[in-house]
Amino acid sequence: MTRTIAILGGTGPEGSGLAYRWARAGEQIVIGSRDAQRAVETARQLRERIGGNARAEGAENAAAAAGGDVVVLTVPFSGHAALLKQLKPVWKPGTIVIDTTVPLAAEVGDTATRMLGVWQGSAAEQARELLPPSVSVAAAFQNLGASRLASDELVECDVLVCSDDERAKQVAMELAGKIPGARALNGGKLENARIVESITSLLIGLNIRYKVHGAGIRFTGLPQ
Amino acid sequence: MTRTIAILGGTGPEGSGLAYRWARAGEQIVIGSRDAQRAVETARQLRERIGGNARAEGAENAAAAAGGDVVVLTVPFSGHAALLKQLKPVWKPGTIVIDTTVPLAAEVGDTATRMLGVWQGSAAEQARELLPPSVSVAAAFQNLGASRLASDELVECDVLVCSDDERAKQVAMELAGKIPGARALNGGKLENARIVESITSLLIGLNIRYKVHGAGIRFTGLPQ
Repeated sequence: MTRTIAILGGTGPEGSGLAYRWARAGEQIVIGSRDAQRAVETARQLRERIGGNARAEGAENAAAAAGGDVVVLTVPFSGHAALLKQLKPVWKPGTIVIDTTVPLAAEVGDTATRMLGVWQGSAAEQARELLPPSVSVAAAFQNLGASRLASDELVECDVLVCSDDERAKQVAMELAGKIPGARALNGGKLENARIVESITSLLIGLNIRYKVHGAGIRFTGLPQ
Repeated sequence: MTRTIAILGGTGPEGSGLAYRWARAGEQIVIGSRDAQRAVETARQLRERIGGNARAEGAENAAAAAGGDVVVLTVPFSGHAALLKQLKPVWKPGTIVIDTTVPLAAEVGDTATRMLGVWQGSAAEQARELLPPSVSVAAAFQNLGASRLASDELVECDVLVCSDDERAKQVAMELAGKIPGARALNGGKLENARIVESITSLLIGLNIRYKVHGAGIRFTGLPQ
C-alpha cells in the first residue's frame, strides 16, 4: 500500500516547495488548504510541472490530515494552534506528524529575524501538546528556504530532525533524504526544535544582510 | 602601538584554545584568571608550544581586563555576571569586549544539550547590561569547540559575530579571520547572540549522538 503525505498549508511557499520535491521523488502527495479549491489547483500545477506519473491531489486541511499517513504542517505559526485544535477529531492512530513551523515574530507584526517565545518551548512542542498521544510527532525542515525548495537546485542544507519518537524520526529523516542536497541529521529530542526553529531567524537575517535568498546550514565534523 | 588581547578565563579549554590560535597568528595575548599564578603558567606553556617570538603573559582577571584593548570573556556562565560586577571599576573607555559565553544548563547541574534562560536574552546581552556604556561589546566564537581550537586542525566552523557596535563587530570579525578554518560572518544585532549561543547546545548534542568531538557549522548560499 502506498503511503500518502499530506501537506497542510501546502499552497504556501514552504509547503508547495516540499510537495514539489517529494512528488518529484515519487511520493503520493495531498496538498491541504483551508480552501479545497486552491489545494486542488496547486496540486494540478504540481502534476503539470513534474509531468509523467506525478501523484498529487488537493483537499481541505481536515480531509488531508485524516487521509495522510504522514502529515506535514507548513502553516504560518499564527494559525498553528487553531488548526491543530480544529483537527483534534480527525487523526487516525499511528499518523506521523512532521512540524516545519517557525514562530517568527513577523507573525505578530515584528520582524522575521526575531522569534516569538512559545510557552511550550517551540512550535513543535506546541503541536505535540495539541495532538493526541496516538500520533507521532517530529520537527524538521524548518531551515529549508522556500525559494530553494521551489527551484530545481540542490537545497544545500542539513535537516535536523528532532523527535522523542523513533518511528517519526526515521520517517522524517528518510523524507529529508529525498530532497536533493539535503542531509538528514539526528537532532535529538523534540525539545531541541527550540534551537532549530530559531536558526531560521538567523538564516533570514543572513539572507537580508548578504542580499541572498537561500542561506542554509551545514554541520561539519560529523562522520562521512 | 601593539594591541593586547586579554582572555579572561584564559586558563580554561575555550580560552586557552583561542589564546593559542591568536598567539600563533602573532597577536599579543594576556591570559587572565582568578589565579594569577595559573595564568602565568598557562602563558608560559603557550609560549613554549608556539616557540619563536610568541607573545603571551598571564595576569589576574582584573589586571588583564584593565590592560586589554580587546577583552575576550571565556568564563563559565555561572561566574559571568559576578566577574563583570567585580570588574566594573577597571574598564578603560573604548575597550572592546567579546563575549564567547554560552549559558549551558550544565552550569546548574542539568545537561550541556540544554540552555538556561537568561533574563536579558543571552549571556552577551547580560554582559552588555553589566558593562559601562564606554565599552563596546560583540558576541562571537561560542560555536568553536575547545578541542578543535586546542589542536592544529582547521576549525571548520563559521563564526557569527553579533553586535550593535560597528567597531566591535569589525574587530571580532578580524580576529575570527585569524583562526585557520574559521569564517567570520555578520550575525547582525547583539540580540541574535540568543540564537548563536544556543547553537552550541545543538553542536554538543551532535557530538554526543555522532560520537565526535568537533562538530561545527557552515552557512551555505552566501556570496563567495
